[in-house]
Amino acid sequence: SNLGGGNHAAALMDSQVVDWCKQMMGFPQSASGTLVSGGSMANIIGLTVARNARAGIDVREHGVAAIEKPLRFYGSDQLHSCHRKAMEALGLGNRALRRIPTDAGLRIDIDALRSAIAEDRKAGFRPACVIGTAGTVNTGAVDDLQALARLAAQEDLWFHVDGCIGALIAIAPENSHRVAGIEQAHSIALDPHKWLHAPFEVGCVLIRDASAHRSTFAVTPEYLESTPRGLASGQWLHDFGLQTSRGFRALKVWMALKQHGIEKFGRLIDQNIAQGHYLSGLIEAEPTLELTAPTSINIVCFRYRGDGLTGERQKALNTEIMLRLQEDGIAAVSDTTVHGQHCLRVAINNHRTRREDLDLLVRETVRLGQEVSRPGVALPSP
Amino acid sequence: SNLGGGNHAAALMDSQVVDWCKQMMGFPQSASGTLVSGGSMANIIGLTVARNARAGIDVREHGVAAIEKPLRFYGSDQLHSCHRKAMEALGLGNRALRRIPTDAGLRIDIDALRSAIAEDRKAGFRPACVIGTAGTVNTGAVDDLQALARLAAQEDLWFHVDGCIGALIAIAPENSHRVAGIEQAHSIALDPHKWLHAPFEVGCVLIRDASAHRSTFAVTPEYLESTPRGLASGQWLHDFGLQTSRGFRALKVWMALKQHGIEKFGRLIDQNIAQGHYLSGLIEAEPTLELTAPTSINIVCFRYRGDGLTGERQKALNTEIMLRLQEDGIAAVSDTTVHGQHCLRVAINNHRTRREDLDLLVRETVRLGQEVSRPGVALPSP
Repeated sequence: SNLGGGNHAAALMDSQVVDWCKQMMGFPQSASGTLVSGGSMANIIGLTVARNARAGIDVREHGVAAIEKPLRFYGSDQLHSCHRKAMEALGLGNRALRRIPTDAGLRIDIDALRSAIAEDRKAGFRPACVIGTAGTVNTGAVDDLQALARLAAQEDLWFHVDGCIGALIAIAPENSHRVAGIEQAHSIALDPHKWLHAPFEVGCVLIRDASAHRSTFAVTPEYLESTPRGLASGQWLHDFGLQTSRGFRALKVWMALKQHGIEKFGRLIDQNIAQGHYLSGLIEAEPTLELTAPTSINIVCFRYRGDGLTGERQKALNTEIMLRLQEDGIAAVSDTTVHGQHCLRVAINNHRTRREDLDLLVRETVRLGQEVSRPGVALPSP
Repeated sequence: SNLGGGNHAAALMDSQVVDWCKQMMGFPQSASGTLVSGGSMANIIGLTVARNARAGIDVREHGVAAIEKPLRFYGSDQLHSCHRKAMEALGLGNRALRRIPTDAGLRIDIDALRSAIAEDRKAGFRPACVIGTAGTVNTGAVDDLQALARLAAQEDLWFHVDGCIGALIAIAPENSHRVAGIEQAHSIALDPHKWLHAPFEVGCVLIRDASAHRSTFAVTPEYLESTPRGLASGQWLHDFGLQTSRGFRALKVWMALKQHGIEKFGRLIDQNIAQGHYLSGLIEAEPTLELTAPTSINIVCFRYRGDGLTGERQKALNTEIMLRLQEDGIAAVSDTTVHGQHCLRVAINNHRTRREDLDLLVRETVRLGQEVSRPGVALPSP
């Protein structure tokens, strides 16, 4: 039935899962949160709270057009496209989101960010929010979250972390240092259907200031109590997001955490990250392949060099390799473009992945690369 | 796995379910649509397309503040609260949504709507969209959708229908006339997890103009093709809404429609509506009870009169009756307030409901009303 909220075991389990997410992220018990379909929805919820908290007016009542100085949001040029969609949906517009250049590690350039903020203040904008990424979708790069937290505090910005790829690294003993600073965010988006291995869909957004969260979405005023007893008593989960109808998506996360415990998931995350670095090593040792970005966590970007190939022809060759890897059932490799360079992309999220799977992937990529390089093989047109 | 789209049977089944929804609503095959969590998300998707289509500028790029004349949306004073949340999230603000008075049947007053539009044009606003309701959540009232379609055409407004409660009446032979005109809407929100009996969550939004739909949400430009083959070929479902991560929510609807067919669901809707009118008849025949709104479809609003009771005391009495009905496991009755009057609310959606269940409900309500009216029984405080 509809888990809009109320006095059900299901609603309490939903809150319990959110509480566990807070603990995993180092957030205080007083923080707020809600389960959503996935990362895009988690980010849009976080950014909506950020918008409303920093608007300086009652933006719910009067709308974005009444904001005195136009708000500006910041993220790196590696930001997931859902942030653009969120800015557009929220009425702030794509232009309100400034993309800051990244360094060689594909992490946001903190100095460039600081300059952009100063420039915007001077030009009459209101810098409102910086979005840090804990694991970019392209390469898995993790922004310097501690530096971002400091800067956000100095500049009075909302600090949102898109941790859909990597926030849960916080529970992995060997790698948690990579996301240090995430516990200082005002809001975090994370995805239990990634590294907690829950079936799709289940994302989660956490908001440090519970009252800012509720006052962004609740239509029922605080002073209006629900019924004291019965089905409609208790907290209404729809007061914390855009959905009213809710399935019982908490159950699958609750059961997995009860059964396996946080520690086991932490170990599996460390295992995937170690596998990412193992795969990088294989690629570096293979002369026909090359890494196209540094490997930080579980995402590896590389390509088949091809003899003297560049640009569109190299892209076509690698695309054909990818399609054959998929079609032959060898591996579900995807592709992406990082700073204008096309490459193959491997994201290792599965707890069943073994090193021999990665050996096979490299072997087969090389074999297909040779096969596809032969004269007369038709390549996908650009 | 993630059903963001691509060349999977699951993505094709998703499109098939949307196509069946179009057919059920009398929409052309060329229309667009997407499955979402439920009615609130379906409405926000429809209203986002309406906002962007009527903004008169590239609102995705420049934001709501750049719109020359502030947009105005219209709906009745019985509109579901999700529309307010949508207006706030979209940056238009609650004030951009004018609530138009309703008639004795709780349907939007067409003349009052026409006057409000004229008044707004004169005051420098841009009337953009009228939201018709096919089944209000309070009483099940269905706006005159044919009159709204005509008015929307005359006034050049986007015509959105919130059919989360009642759009599917279009497939019920004895009652489809109640939603005539819905096929002329620009967009419709409906809920397969209500009268198609799918488990939560599954809502659907349909957009007549497929290109307006895609151009509101797709971040991938049209000219960028996906891969010609492999996992990433085919349509991307995330180009039509806010979610990226998607579960396979189409499957449950696909299976139910394949197994039972549209006709059976239509008959069950007729049955629920007949039960609504049967229950109304029982209440009218029972001197201690009274209807508080006309019964139109499957929702019945009534209360226990109580001897000479009014206002807060009558509310407290009826609240206690409701809580005991719930706590004793007799019926999951809710309550609501219609035009300032508190009442109990019965929504009959279950295909297993029988007339004797309704006989029991009336009998037990009367018994509890007598019990609770006795001196010395503590009532919930207002």
